[in-house]
Amino acid sequence: MEGFQAMMDQALVVLSGGQDSTTCLYWAIKKFGIECVSSVTFDYGQRHRIELDCAQEIAAFAGVPNVVLPIDTFAALGGNALTDTSVDVETQIDAETGLPNTFVPGRNLIFLTFAAAFAYQRGIANLVTGVAQTDYSGYPDCRAETMTALQSALRAGMESDIRIHTPLMQLSKQETVELARELGALPALAMTHTCYNGERPPCGHCPACELRAKGFADAGVTDPLIFRQ
Amino acid sequence: MEGFQAMMDQALVVLSGGQDSTTCLYWAIKKFGIECVSSVTFDYGQRHRIELDCAQEIAAFAGVPNVVLPIDTFAALGGNALTDTSVDVETQIDAETGLPNTFVPGRNLIFLTFAAAFAYQRGIANLVTGVAQTDYSGYPDCRAETMTALQSALRAGMESDIRIHTPLMQLSKQETVELARELGALPALAMTHTCYNGERPPCGHCPACELRAKGFADAGVTDPLIFRQ
Repeated sequence: MEGFQAMMDQALVVLSGGQDSTTCLYWAIKKFGIECVSSVTFDYGQRHRIELDCAQEIAAFAGVPNVVLPIDTFAALGGNALTDTSVDVETQIDAETGLPNTFVPGRNLIFLTFAAAFAYQRGIANLVTGVAQTDYSGYPDCRAETMTALQSALRAGMESDIRIHTPLMQLSKQETVELARELGALPALAMTHTCYNGERPPCGHCPACELRAKGFADAGVTDPLIFRQ
Repeated sequence: MEGFQAMMDQALVVLSGGQDSTTCLYWAIKKFGIECVSSVTFDYGQRHRIELDCAQEIAAFAGVPNVVLPIDTFAALGGNALTDTSVDVETQIDAETGLPNTFVPGRNLIFLTFAAAFAYQRGIANLVTGVAQTDYSGYPDCRAETMTALQSALRAGMESDIRIHTPLMQLSKQETVELARELGALPALAMTHTCYNGERPPCGHCPACELRAKGFADAGVTDPLIFRQ
């Protein structure tokens, strides 16, 4: 365990492999220095496994360590197994999509609590997450109020001075793209994954692709992802 | 999803298979009525797998549903895998004990957040946990301050009116035994697991056995577990 000063200097980025968390990775590198930044990615049964590859590729490209931690609980929570009383809860598959149904309310609470535990063990005092309450469908676990309350719970529950940084909280998609450009994160954004359909290069017509495209268009920036492959 | 009134009436007990959570199960049955109580147990790689059997046995004995949910993340967090940058984080085994090293700071934050997600999906508004800040070595994630902060985070993050009940928070071990007696929980306590050495009947000389024995002795109650088998 490192000393107090070292703890204050270290940051852990929750890296999903998407545009927002990648921008946060570069924000953290600028703020804390590349030697003080590491990243964690959760393998929780997400629809598109490509996200894990993207996260690792992005971390390697940026030059920061990345650890993938498994969470098998979301898959168990997501399915009809919830209504059973059996011991073994199998991964549930959505009949329509053929993919695991892994929606869980408050998912970011879990991500950040595990990230905080990971950070605690390593003597890291800063967490960085790409949640934002702007331009989104209003997931309550992405809001500033939630992050403030969670930070209080983590500090009390771990007796630490951990701090949750949310650099994108109040930014529009346009502003996030502008921030990425300022931070020199655009090359890394070429490796990110956004498309709901799991396509790479992206499909261009799903809601996630359209939201991303609008952000780049509004910022007057060409999305590097378009030119991939 | 059930209506608002139904939500307020339902309770989910985090049942570990130990003395405290079993007492809480009976507390919840008395407060909410047996038809409104269910229980969840986490299979997180605990040292003694017998705890899972105990929890299921106790829930069946009490007549309430029990679901076991897996959490594979603690094992990944507990070991030296943390310092690696590899993708796959294997379960780490403690060389001294031969058991998974699964200590994670703030573990109750995770348990209760997953329990809250589970409860949310089922329309259950009350969580019950056996954490206590008395007679313990002072785990910060067991304290009232932490539970209050966590409840705020869960409410904000899930947009719910969820409430965390901690009936044992301020009780000594003696008072917990007295409460168990008042609630008619003593027969169920015969099925609980306490011993650090994983023995059943208990070893009687580990710190957990001694603490349990002192609680019963102070309350003037014979521990039903002693007479098991």
